[in-house]
Amino acid sequence: MDAREAGEVVGLVPTMGALHEGHLSLIRAARNSCGLVVASLFVNPTQFGANEDFDSYPRDEARDLCLFRQNGVDVVYVPSVEEIYPDGFNVTVSVEGLTNVLCGRVRPGHFDGVTTVVSKLFDHVRPQLAYFGEKDYQQLKVVEKLVTNLNLGIKVVGCPTIRESDGLALSSRNFYLNEKERIRAPALYETLEAVADRLNANRDLLTQCDWGRNALIKAGFDKVDYFEILDDVTLEPAIRYRPGLRAFAAAWLDSTRLIDNLFLK
Amino acid sequence: MDAREAGEVVGLVPTMGALHEGHLSLIRAARNSCGLVVASLFVNPTQFGANEDFDSYPRDEARDLCLFRQNGVDVVYVPSVEEIYPDGFNVTVSVEGLTNVLCGRVRPGHFDGVTTVVSKLFDHVRPQLAYFGEKDYQQLKVVEKLVTNLNLGIKVVGCPTIRESDGLALSSRNFYLNEKERIRAPALYETLEAVADRLNANRDLLTQCDWGRNALIKAGFDKVDYFEILDDVTLEPAIRYRPGLRAFAAAWLDSTRLIDNLFLK
Repeated sequence: MDAREAGEVVGLVPTMGALHEGHLSLIRAARNSCGLVVASLFVNPTQFGANEDFDSYPRDEARDLCLFRQNGVDVVYVPSVEEIYPDGFNVTVSVEGLTNVLCGRVRPGHFDGVTTVVSKLFDHVRPQLAYFGEKDYQQLKVVEKLVTNLNLGIKVVGCPTIRESDGLALSSRNFYLNEKERIRAPALYETLEAVADRLNANRDLLTQCDWGRNALIKAGFDKVDYFEILDDVTLEPAIRYRPGLRAFAAAWLDSTRLIDNLFLK
Repeated sequence: MDAREAGEVVGLVPTMGALHEGHLSLIRAARNSCGLVVASLFVNPTQFGANEDFDSYPRDEARDLCLFRQNGVDVVYVPSVEEIYPDGFNVTVSVEGLTNVLCGRVRPGHFDGVTTVVSKLFDHVRPQLAYFGEKDYQQLKVVEKLVTNLNLGIKVVGCPTIRESDGLALSSRNFYLNEKERIRAPALYETLEAVADRLNANRDLLTQCDWGRNALIKAGFDKVDYFEILDDVTLEPAIRYRPGLRAFAAAWLDSTRLIDNLFLK
Protein backbone atom coordinates (compact mmCIF):
# COMPACT_ATOMS: atom_id res chain seq x y z
CA MET A 1 0.00 0.00 0.00
CA ASP A 2 1.11 3.57 -0.52
CA ALA A 3 -1.28 5.85 1.22
CA ARG A 4 0.37 8.97 -0.15
CA GLU A 5 -1.49 8.52 -3.43
CA ALA A 6 -4.47 10.14 -1.75
CA GLY A 7 -2.63 13.46 -1.62
CA GLU A 8 -3.56 13.96 2.01
CA VAL A 9 -1.40 14.21 5.11
CA VAL A 10 -1.00 10.60 6.20
CA GLY A 11 -0.57 9.72 9.85
CA LEU A 12 0.54 6.25 10.91
CA VAL A 13 -0.20 4.68 14.28
CA PRO A 14 1.83 1.45 14.43
CA THR A 15 0.37 -1.08 16.87
CA MET A 16 0.74 -4.73 17.81
CA GLY A 17 -3.00 -4.85 18.49
CA ALA A 18 -4.44 -5.65 21.93
CA LEU A 19 -5.62 -2.07 21.87
CA HIS A 20 -6.18 0.06 24.95
CA GLU A 21 -6.78 3.72 25.66
CA GLY A 22 -3.10 4.43 25.04
CA HIS A 23 -3.43 3.37 21.42
CA LEU A 24 -6.71 5.24 21.09
CA SER A 25 -5.05 8.43 22.32
CA LEU A 26 -2.49 8.06 19.53
CA ILE A 27 -5.31 7.63 17.01
CA ARG A 28 -7.04 10.75 18.34
CA ALA A 29 -3.82 12.72 18.04
CA ALA A 30 -3.41 11.50 14.44
CA ARG A 31 -7.05 12.28 13.71
CA ASN A 32 -6.44 15.88 14.83
CA SER A 33 -3.49 16.46 12.48
CA CYS A 34 -3.90 14.15 9.51
CA GLY A 35 -6.30 13.83 6.60
CA LEU A 36 -5.78 10.09 6.44
CA VAL A 37 -5.14 8.00 9.54
CA VAL A 38 -3.54 4.61 8.97
CA ALA A 39 -3.19 2.14 11.83
CA SER A 40 -1.04 -0.92 11.42
CA LEU A 41 -1.66 -4.12 13.32
CA PHE A 42 1.31 -6.46 13.31
CA VAL A 43 2.72 -8.50 16.16
CA ASN A 44 6.32 -8.30 15.06
CA PRO A 45 8.15 -11.55 15.81
CA THR A 46 11.63 -10.07 15.47
CA GLN A 47 11.31 -7.71 18.42
CA PHE A 48 10.63 -10.57 20.82
CA GLY A 49 13.53 -12.51 22.29
CA ALA A 50 13.65 -16.32 22.16
CA ASN A 51 12.25 -16.66 25.69
CA GLU A 52 9.82 -13.78 25.50
CA ASP A 53 6.07 -13.65 25.09
CA PHE A 54 5.56 -13.61 21.32
CA ASP A 55 3.33 -16.70 21.38
CA SER A 56 1.26 -15.56 24.32
CA TYR A 57 1.06 -11.89 23.32
CA PRO A 58 -2.64 -10.96 23.48
CA ARG A 59 -4.33 -11.11 20.07
CA ASP A 60 -7.92 -10.17 19.28
CA GLU A 61 -8.05 -8.89 15.74
CA ALA A 62 -11.85 -8.64 15.53
CA ARG A 63 -11.98 -6.43 18.64
CA ASP A 64 -9.02 -4.35 17.41
CA LEU A 65 -10.58 -3.75 13.99
CA CYS A 66 -13.81 -2.69 15.64
CA LEU A 67 -11.99 -0.22 17.91
CA PHE A 68 -10.01 1.17 14.97
CA ARG A 69 -13.25 1.76 13.09
CA GLN A 70 -15.03 3.32 16.06
CA ASN A 71 -12.13 5.71 16.58
CA GLY A 72 -11.98 7.02 13.04
CA VAL A 73 -9.07 5.11 11.54
CA ASP A 74 -9.36 5.37 7.75
CA VAL A 75 -7.13 2.45 6.78
CA VAL A 76 -6.04 -0.51 8.86
CA TYR A 77 -2.91 -2.20 7.58
CA VAL A 78 -2.65 -5.82 8.76
CA PRO A 79 0.33 -7.29 6.94
CA SER A 80 1.20 -10.95 7.11
CA VAL A 81 4.60 -12.00 8.41
CA GLU A 82 5.45 -12.93 4.80
CA GLU A 83 4.60 -9.45 3.58
CA ILE A 84 6.92 -7.83 6.10
CA TYR A 85 9.62 -10.51 6.00
CA PRO A 86 9.44 -12.21 2.60
CA ASP A 87 11.39 -15.37 2.00
CA GLY A 88 15.08 -14.51 2.04
CA PHE A 89 14.59 -11.29 3.97
CA ASN A 90 17.96 -10.40 5.42
CA VAL A 91 18.21 -6.69 6.17
CA THR A 92 18.57 -5.18 9.62
CA VAL A 93 18.22 -1.49 10.36
CA SER A 94 19.96 -0.71 13.64
CA VAL A 95 20.20 2.35 15.82
CA GLU A 96 23.27 2.17 18.00
CA GLY A 97 24.07 4.17 21.11
CA LEU A 98 20.56 4.86 22.37
CA THR A 99 19.86 1.12 22.31
CA ASN A 100 22.72 0.11 24.60
CA VAL A 101 20.85 1.10 27.76
CA LEU A 102 17.61 0.20 29.55
CA CYS A 103 15.46 -2.25 27.56
CA GLY A 104 18.13 -2.47 24.86
CA ARG A 105 20.60 -3.86 27.39
CA VAL A 106 18.11 -6.27 28.94
CA ARG A 107 16.50 -7.38 25.66
CA PRO A 108 19.31 -7.88 23.12
CA GLY A 109 18.04 -7.59 19.55
CA HIS A 110 14.73 -6.05 20.61
CA PHE A 111 15.35 -2.61 19.17
CA ASP A 112 16.86 -4.01 15.96
CA GLY A 113 13.50 -5.75 15.55
CA VAL A 114 11.66 -2.51 16.27
CA THR A 115 13.70 -0.29 13.95
CA THR A 116 13.63 -2.84 11.13
CA VAL A 117 9.86 -3.33 11.28
CA VAL A 118 9.23 0.39 11.68
CA SER A 119 11.41 1.01 8.61
CA LYS A 120 9.28 -1.46 6.68
CA LEU A 121 6.00 0.01 7.94
CA PHE A 122 7.16 3.53 7.10
CA ASP A 123 8.11 2.35 3.67
CA HIS A 124 4.84 0.54 3.04
CA VAL A 125 2.60 3.27 4.38
CA ARG A 126 4.74 6.34 3.63
CA PRO A 127 3.25 8.55 6.33
CA GLN A 128 4.18 12.16 6.97
CA LEU A 129 3.53 11.73 10.69
CA ALA A 130 3.92 8.71 12.94
CA TYR A 131 2.62 8.37 16.47
CA PHE A 132 4.34 6.63 19.37
CA GLY A 133 3.57 6.60 23.09
CA GLU A 134 5.90 7.98 25.73
CA LYS A 135 5.23 4.85 27.78
CA ASP A 136 7.83 3.19 25.54
CA TYR A 137 10.05 6.23 25.83
CA GLN A 138 13.28 4.59 24.68
CA GLN A 139 11.48 3.25 21.61
CA LEU A 140 10.21 6.75 20.88
CA LYS A 141 13.75 8.15 21.05
CA VAL A 142 15.14 5.31 18.94
CA VAL A 143 12.51 5.85 16.24
CA GLU A 144 13.18 9.60 16.28
CA LYS A 145 16.88 8.83 15.76
CA LEU A 146 16.10 6.44 12.93
CA VAL A 147 14.01 9.06 11.18
CA THR A 148 16.48 11.91 11.56
CA ASN A 149 19.57 9.81 10.74
CA LEU A 150 18.02 8.31 7.62
CA ASN A 151 16.27 11.59 6.69
CA LEU A 152 13.00 9.75 6.31
CA GLY A 153 11.07 12.99 6.24
CA ILE A 154 8.57 11.80 8.83
CA LYS A 155 7.56 13.72 11.91
CA VAL A 156 7.60 11.41 14.91
CA VAL A 157 4.96 12.51 17.40
CA GLY A 158 5.35 11.36 20.99
CA CYS A 159 2.15 11.17 23.00
CA PRO A 160 1.80 11.19 26.80
CA THR A 161 1.41 7.94 28.67
CA ILE A 162 -2.20 7.09 29.49
CA ARG A 163 -2.74 5.69 32.98
CA GLU A 164 -5.37 3.83 34.96
CA SER A 165 -6.90 5.84 37.79
CA ASP A 166 -4.40 4.23 40.17
CA GLY A 167 -1.47 5.36 38.04
CA LEU A 168 -0.63 2.11 36.24
CA ALA A 169 0.54 2.89 32.72
CA LEU A 170 -1.70 1.27 30.11
CA SER A 171 0.02 -1.62 28.36
CA SER A 172 -1.15 -4.66 26.47
CA ARG A 173 0.93 -6.69 28.90
CA ASN A 174 -1.34 -5.59 31.76
CA PHE A 175 -3.73 -8.21 30.38
CA TYR A 176 -1.37 -10.86 31.77
CA LEU A 177 -1.74 -9.68 35.38
CA ASN A 178 -3.82 -11.72 37.80
CA GLU A 179 -5.82 -9.98 40.49
CA LYS A 180 -3.05 -9.97 43.07
CA GLU A 181 -0.46 -8.74 40.57
CA ARG A 182 -2.82 -6.05 39.31
CA ILE A 183 -3.07 -4.68 42.86
CA ARG A 184 0.72 -4.54 43.15
CA ALA A 185 1.38 -3.16 39.65
CA PRO A 186 0.71 0.57 40.38
CA ALA A 187 3.72 0.52 42.70
CA LEU A 188 5.90 0.87 39.58
CA TYR A 189 4.62 4.36 38.89
CA GLU A 190 4.26 5.21 42.59
CA THR A 191 7.94 4.41 43.07
CA LEU A 192 8.96 6.60 40.12
CA GLU A 193 6.90 9.41 41.67
CA ALA A 194 8.35 8.75 45.11
CA VAL A 195 11.89 8.97 43.72
CA ALA A 196 11.04 12.21 41.92
CA ASP A 197 9.80 13.53 45.25
CA ARG A 198 12.73 12.26 47.30
CA LEU A 199 15.16 13.97 44.91
CA ASN A 200 14.01 17.30 46.33
CA ALA A 201 15.59 16.34 49.65
CA ASN A 202 18.53 14.21 48.50
CA ARG A 203 19.85 14.79 45.01
CA ASP A 204 22.18 11.83 44.86
CA LEU A 205 20.94 9.88 41.86
CA LEU A 206 22.55 6.53 42.69
CA THR A 207 21.13 6.61 46.20
CA GLN A 208 17.65 7.27 44.91
CA CYS A 209 17.83 4.62 42.19
CA ASP A 210 18.96 2.08 44.80
CA TRP A 211 16.05 3.16 46.94
CA GLY A 212 13.71 2.76 43.96
CA ARG A 213 14.90 -0.76 43.23
CA ASN A 214 14.43 -1.77 46.86
CA ALA A 215 11.02 -0.12 47.01
CA LEU A 216 9.85 -2.15 44.03
CA ILE A 217 10.95 -5.42 45.62
CA LYS A 218 9.27 -4.41 48.88
CA ALA A 219 6.10 -3.61 46.92
CA GLY A 220 6.01 -7.19 45.66
CA PHE A 221 7.85 -7.07 42.37
CA ASP A 222 9.84 -10.26 41.80
CA LYS A 223 12.76 -8.78 39.90
CA VAL A 224 13.90 -5.32 38.83
CA ASP A 225 15.53 -5.13 35.38
CA TYR A 226 16.53 -1.53 35.91
CA PHE A 227 15.76 1.65 37.83
CA GLU A 228 17.78 4.43 36.28
CA ILE A 229 17.86 8.17 35.83
CA LEU A 230 19.11 9.29 32.42
CA ASP A 231 19.23 12.34 30.23
CA ASP A 232 15.77 12.89 28.79
CA VAL A 233 17.08 13.45 25.24
CA THR A 234 20.26 11.39 24.84
CA LEU A 235 19.49 8.64 27.38
CA GLU A 236 23.04 9.07 28.58
CA PRO A 237 23.75 8.42 32.25
CA ALA A 238 23.39 11.43 34.48
CA ILE A 239 26.18 12.04 36.95
CA ARG A 240 24.32 14.46 39.14
CA TYR A 241 20.87 15.92 39.48
CA ARG A 242 20.01 18.68 37.01
CA PRO A 243 17.03 19.70 34.91
CA GLY A 244 16.24 17.51 31.88
CA LEU A 245 16.38 14.07 33.45
CA ARG A 246 13.95 11.18 33.28
CA ALA A 247 13.58 8.15 35.55
CA PHE A 248 13.05 4.74 33.98
CA ALA A 249 12.00 1.46 35.57
CA ALA A 250 11.37 -2.09 34.39
CA ALA A 251 10.30 -4.82 36.78
CA TRP A 252 8.63 -8.19 36.82
CA LEU A 253 5.48 -9.45 38.53
CA ASP A 254 5.97 -13.19 38.15
CA SER A 255 6.30 -13.68 34.35
CA THR A 256 4.95 -10.26 33.38
CA ARG A 257 7.42 -7.48 32.69
CA LEU A 258 6.21 -3.92 33.14
CA ILE A 259 8.00 -0.70 32.23
CA ASP A 260 7.33 2.94 32.98
CA ASN A 261 9.12 6.26 33.08
CA LEU A 262 8.71 9.74 34.50
CA PHE A 263 10.18 13.09 33.51
CA LEU A 264 11.82 14.76 36.52
CA LYS A 265 10.55 18.31 36.70
CA MET B 1 18.19 17.45 -2.44
CA ASP B 2 15.13 15.64 -3.75
CA ALA B 3 15.43 15.26 -7.47
CA ARG B 4 11.96 13.76 -7.80
CA GLU B 5 10.43 17.22 -7.64
CA ALA B 6 11.31 17.54 -11.30
CA GLY B 7 8.71 14.93 -12.20
CA GLU B 8 11.17 13.06 -14.40
CA VAL B 9 12.59 9.57 -14.11
CA VAL B 10 15.66 10.05 -11.93
CA GLY B 11 18.68 7.80 -12.32
CA LEU B 12 21.45 7.77 -9.73
CA VAL B 13 25.04 6.76 -10.41
CA PRO B 14 26.77 6.59 -7.02
CA THR B 15 30.55 7.03 -7.27
CA MET B 16 33.54 7.62 -5.04
CA GLY B 17 35.08 9.72 -7.82
CA ALA B 18 38.39 8.82 -9.50
CA LEU B 19 36.25 8.24 -12.56
CA HIS B 20 37.12 5.83 -15.33
CA GLU B 21 35.29 4.34 -18.31
CA GLY B 22 33.44 1.97 -15.98
CA HIS B 23 31.72 4.91 -14.30
CA LEU B 24 31.09 6.58 -17.64
CA SER B 25 29.37 3.42 -18.91
CA LEU B 26 27.01 3.63 -15.93
CA ILE B 27 26.30 7.26 -16.76
CA ARG B 28 25.58 6.37 -20.40
CA ALA B 29 23.21 3.61 -19.28
CA ALA B 30 21.43 6.09 -16.99
CA ARG B 31 21.36 8.69 -19.77
CA ASN B 32 19.56 6.16 -22.01
CA SER B 33 16.76 5.43 -19.51
CA CYS B 34 16.34 8.49 -17.32
CA GLY B 35 15.16 12.04 -17.79
CA LEU B 36 17.41 13.29 -15.03
CA VAL B 37 20.81 11.73 -14.32
CA VAL B 38 22.26 12.36 -10.87
CA ALA B 39 25.81 11.28 -10.06
CA SER B 40 27.01 11.32 -6.50
CA LEU B 41 30.63 11.81 -5.56
CA PHE B 42 31.40 10.77 -2.02
CA VAL B 43 34.40 8.84 -0.72
CA ASN B 44 32.55 7.04 2.03
CA PRO B 45 34.76 6.64 5.10
CA THR B 46 32.62 3.94 6.72
CA GLN B 47 33.19 1.36 4.00
CA PHE B 48 36.96 1.45 4.51
CA GLY B 49 38.52 -0.66 7.25
CA ALA B 50 40.94 0.85 9.76
CA ASN B 51 43.99 -0.34 7.80
CA GLU B 52 42.56 0.28 4.35
CA ASP B 53 43.17 2.99 1.78
CA PHE B 54 40.66 5.70 2.72
CA ASP B 55 43.35 8.37 3.08
CA SER B 56 45.18 7.44 -0.09
CA TYR B 57 42.07 6.75 -2.19
CA PRO B 58 42.54 8.76 -5.43
CA ARG B 59 40.71 12.10 -5.34
CA ASP B 60 40.47 14.61 -8.18
CA GLU B 61 37.18 16.43 -7.85
CA ALA B 62 37.87 18.99 -10.60
CA ARG B 63 38.58 16.25 -13.13
CA ASP B 64 35.56 14.22 -11.97
CA LEU B 65 33.20 17.20 -12.24
CA CYS B 66 34.49 17.88 -15.73
CA LEU B 67 33.92 14.26 -16.78
CA PHE B 68 30.44 14.26 -15.27
CA ARG B 69 29.58 17.38 -17.26
CA GLN B 70 31.06 16.06 -20.51
CA ASN B 71 29.07 12.86 -20.17
CA GLY B 72 25.70 14.46 -19.69
CA VAL B 73 25.16 14.23 -15.94
CA ASP B 74 22.44 16.72 -14.99
CA VAL B 75 23.12 16.98 -11.28
CA VAL B 76 26.27 16.13 -9.36
CA TYR B 77 25.69 15.51 -5.67
CA VAL B 78 28.86 16.03 -3.64
CA PRO B 79 27.80 15.77 0.00
CA SER B 80 30.13 16.53 2.86
CA VAL B 81 30.84 13.86 5.44
CA GLU B 82 28.74 15.94 7.85
CA GLU B 83 25.78 15.90 5.48
CA ILE B 84 25.84 12.12 5.23
CA TYR B 85 26.85 11.46 8.83
CA PRO B 86 25.66 14.39 10.92
CA ASP B 87 26.83 14.72 14.48
CA GLY B 88 25.33 11.89 16.51
CA PHE B 89 24.63 9.72 13.48
CA ASN B 90 24.16 6.21 14.78
CA VAL B 91 22.14 4.11 12.35
CA THR B 92 23.45 1.09 10.48
CA VAL B 93 21.60 -0.61 7.65
CA SER B 94 22.88 -4.15 7.26
CA VAL B 95 22.30 -6.91 4.75
CA GLU B 96 23.13 -10.27 6.27
CA GLY B 97 23.76 -13.55 4.49
CA LEU B 98 25.10 -12.27 1.19
CA THR B 99 27.72 -10.29 3.08
CA ASN B 100 29.25 -13.24 4.93
CA VAL B 101 31.27 -14.38 1.90
CA LEU B 102 34.00 -13.01 -0.41
CA CYS B 103 34.80 -9.33 0.33
CA GLY B 104 32.36 -9.34 3.25
CA ARG B 105 34.41 -12.01 4.98
CA VAL B 106 37.75 -10.39 4.23
CA ARG B 107 36.64 -6.81 4.92
CA PRO B 108 34.47 -6.89 8.06
CA GLY B 109 32.12 -3.91 8.23
CA HIS B 110 32.71 -2.97 4.59
CA PHE B 111 29.22 -3.81 3.36
CA ASP B 112 27.53 -2.24 6.39
CA GLY B 113 29.30 0.94 5.28
CA VAL B 114 28.11 0.43 1.71
CA THR B 115 24.47 -0.33 2.55
CA THR B 116 24.24 2.50 5.06
CA VAL B 117 25.66 5.12 2.69
CA VAL B 118 23.61 3.81 -0.24
CA SER B 119 20.49 4.05 1.94
CA LYS B 120 21.37 7.66 2.67
CA LEU B 121 22.12 8.48 -0.97
CA PHE B 122 18.88 6.84 -2.10
CA ASP B 123 17.02 8.84 0.48
CA HIS B 124 18.68 12.14 -0.43
CA VAL B 125 18.37 11.71 -4.19
CA ARG B 126 15.21 9.54 -4.38
CA PRO B 127 16.00 7.95 -7.73
CA GLN B 128 13.79 5.48 -9.57
CA LEU B 129 16.83 3.73 -11.03
CA ALA B 130 20.33 3.26 -9.60
CA TYR B 131 23.35 2.02 -11.52
CA PHE B 132 26.08 -0.27 -10.21
CA GLY B 133 28.87 -2.09 -12.01
CA GLU B 134 29.18 -5.86 -12.15
CA LYS B 135 32.87 -5.48 -11.36
CA ASP B 136 31.75 -5.13 -7.73
CA TYR B 137 29.33 -8.00 -8.19
CA GLN B 138 28.79 -8.77 -4.51
CA GLN B 139 28.04 -5.09 -3.88
CA LEU B 140 25.50 -5.17 -6.72
CA LYS B 141 23.75 -8.20 -5.18
CA VAL B 142 23.82 -6.66 -1.69
CA VAL B 143 22.28 -3.41 -2.94
CA GLU B 144 19.61 -5.37 -4.85
CA LYS B 145 18.79 -7.20 -1.63
CA LEU B 146 18.64 -3.94 0.32
CA VAL B 147 16.22 -2.49 -2.19
CA THR B 148 13.91 -5.50 -2.39
CA ASN B 149 13.95 -6.21 1.34
CA LEU B 150 13.18 -2.62 2.27
CA ASN B 151 10.81 -2.16 -0.68
CA LEU B 152 12.63 1.00 -1.66
CA GLY B 153 10.91 1.04 -5.03
CA ILE B 154 14.17 1.54 -6.90
CA LYS B 155 15.28 -0.50 -9.87
CA VAL B 156 18.93 -1.50 -9.42
CA VAL B 157 20.61 -1.75 -12.81
CA GLY B 158 23.78 -3.84 -13.02
CA CYS B 159 26.14 -2.89 -15.85
CA PRO B 160 28.86 -5.07 -17.39
CA THR B 161 32.45 -4.69 -16.26
CA ILE B 162 34.53 -2.48 -18.52
CA ARG B 163 38.04 -3.78 -19.21
CA GLU B 164 41.33 -2.54 -20.56
CA SER B 165 42.34 -4.09 -23.87
CA ASP B 166 44.43 -6.63 -21.95
CA GLY B 167 41.42 -7.69 -19.86
CA LEU B 168 42.15 -5.83 -16.62
CA ALA B 169 38.85 -4.69 -15.10
CA LEU B 170 38.72 -0.93 -14.74
CA SER B 171 39.00 0.18 -11.12
CA SER B 172 40.01 3.36 -9.38
CA ARG B 173 42.52 1.23 -7.49
CA ASN B 174 44.36 0.51 -10.75
CA PHE B 175 45.78 4.02 -10.28
CA TYR B 176 47.92 2.60 -7.46
CA LEU B 177 49.73 0.10 -9.69
CA ASN B 178 53.33 0.76 -10.68
CA GLU B 179 54.57 -0.28 -14.11
CA LYS B 180 55.61 -3.78 -13.06
CA GLU B 181 52.38 -4.40 -11.18
CA ARG B 182 50.31 -3.08 -14.09
CA ILE B 183 51.93 -5.71 -16.32
CA ARG B 184 51.03 -8.47 -13.86
CA ALA B 185 47.51 -7.26 -13.08
CA PRO B 186 45.69 -8.75 -16.14
CA ALA B 187 46.55 -12.20 -14.79
CA LEU B 188 43.58 -11.81 -12.43
CA TYR B 189 41.09 -11.91 -15.30
CA GLU B 190 43.18 -14.34 -17.32
CA THR B 191 43.10 -16.79 -14.43
CA LEU B 192 39.31 -16.46 -14.09
CA GLU B 193 39.03 -17.18 -17.81
CA ALA B 194 41.49 -20.07 -17.57
CA VAL B 195 39.46 -21.63 -14.76
CA ALA B 196 36.25 -21.21 -16.78
CA ASP B 197 38.00 -23.00 -19.61
CA ARG B 198 39.51 -25.75 -17.46
CA LEU B 199 36.07 -26.54 -16.01
CA ASN B 200 35.14 -27.98 -19.40
CA ALA B 201 37.67 -30.74 -18.84
CA ASN B 202 37.54 -31.13 -15.04
CA ARG B 203 34.36 -30.03 -13.30
CA ASP B 204 35.63 -30.34 -9.76
CA LEU B 205 35.18 -26.82 -8.37
CA LEU B 206 37.57 -27.10 -5.43
CA THR B 207 40.34 -28.42 -7.65
CA GLN B 208 39.90 -25.56 -10.08
CA CYS B 209 39.75 -22.89 -7.35
CA ASP B 210 42.94 -24.29 -5.85
CA TRP B 211 44.50 -24.15 -9.30
CA GLY B 212 43.30 -20.54 -9.67
CA ARG B 213 44.85 -19.48 -6.37
CA ASN B 214 48.16 -21.06 -7.29
CA ALA B 215 48.06 -19.56 -10.77
CA LEU B 216 47.64 -16.08 -9.29
CA ILE B 217 50.64 -16.51 -7.01
CA LYS B 218 52.68 -17.86 -9.94
CA ALA B 219 51.62 -14.83 -11.99
CA GLY B 220 53.18 -12.55 -9.37
CA PHE B 221 50.32 -11.73 -7.02
CA ASP B 222 51.54 -11.43 -3.45
CA LYS B 223 48.46 -12.75 -1.69
CA VAL B 224 45.11 -14.21 -2.70
CA ASP B 225 42.16 -13.20 -0.50
CA TYR B 226 39.84 -15.63 -2.25
CA PHE B 227 39.25 -17.57 -5.43
CA GLU B 228 35.78 -19.04 -5.24
CA ILE B 229 32.94 -20.28 -7.40
CA LEU B 230 29.50 -19.41 -6.05
CA ASP B 231 25.88 -19.31 -7.14
CA ASP B 232 25.42 -16.30 -9.40
CA VAL B 233 22.25 -15.15 -7.63
CA THR B 234 22.51 -16.23 -4.00
CA LEU B 235 26.32 -16.22 -3.65
CA GLU B 236 25.94 -19.53 -1.85
CA PRO B 237 28.75 -22.05 -2.20
CA ALA B 238 28.39 -24.42 -5.12
CA ILE B 239 28.97 -28.08 -4.38
CA ARG B 240 29.37 -29.21 -7.97
CA TYR B 241 29.52 -27.68 -11.40
CA ARG B 242 26.17 -26.63 -12.89
CA PRO B 243 24.80 -23.71 -14.89
CA GLY B 244 24.37 -20.42 -13.02
CA LEU B 245 27.73 -20.14 -11.30
CA ARG B 246 30.18 -17.27 -11.13
CA ALA B 247 33.88 -17.27 -10.26
CA PHE B 248 35.22 -14.57 -7.95
CA ALA B 249 38.79 -13.59 -7.18
CA ALA B 250 40.52 -11.01 -4.97
CA ALA B 251 44.28 -10.73 -4.83
CA TRP B 252 47.02 -8.30 -3.89
CA LEU B 253 49.86 -6.79 -5.88
CA ASP B 254 51.98 -5.41 -3.05
CA SER B 255 49.60 -3.02 -1.23
CA THR B 256 46.97 -2.86 -3.98
CA ARG B 257 43.98 -5.17 -3.76
CA LEU B 258 42.23 -6.05 -7.00
CA ILE B 259 38.95 -7.94 -7.45
CA ASP B 260 37.24 -9.40 -10.47
CA ASN B 261 34.59 -11.98 -11.35
CA LEU B 262 33.35 -13.97 -14.31
CA PHE B 263 30.04 -15.64 -15.05
CA LEU B 264 30.58 -19.30 -15.96
CA LYS B 265 28.66 -20.00 -19.15
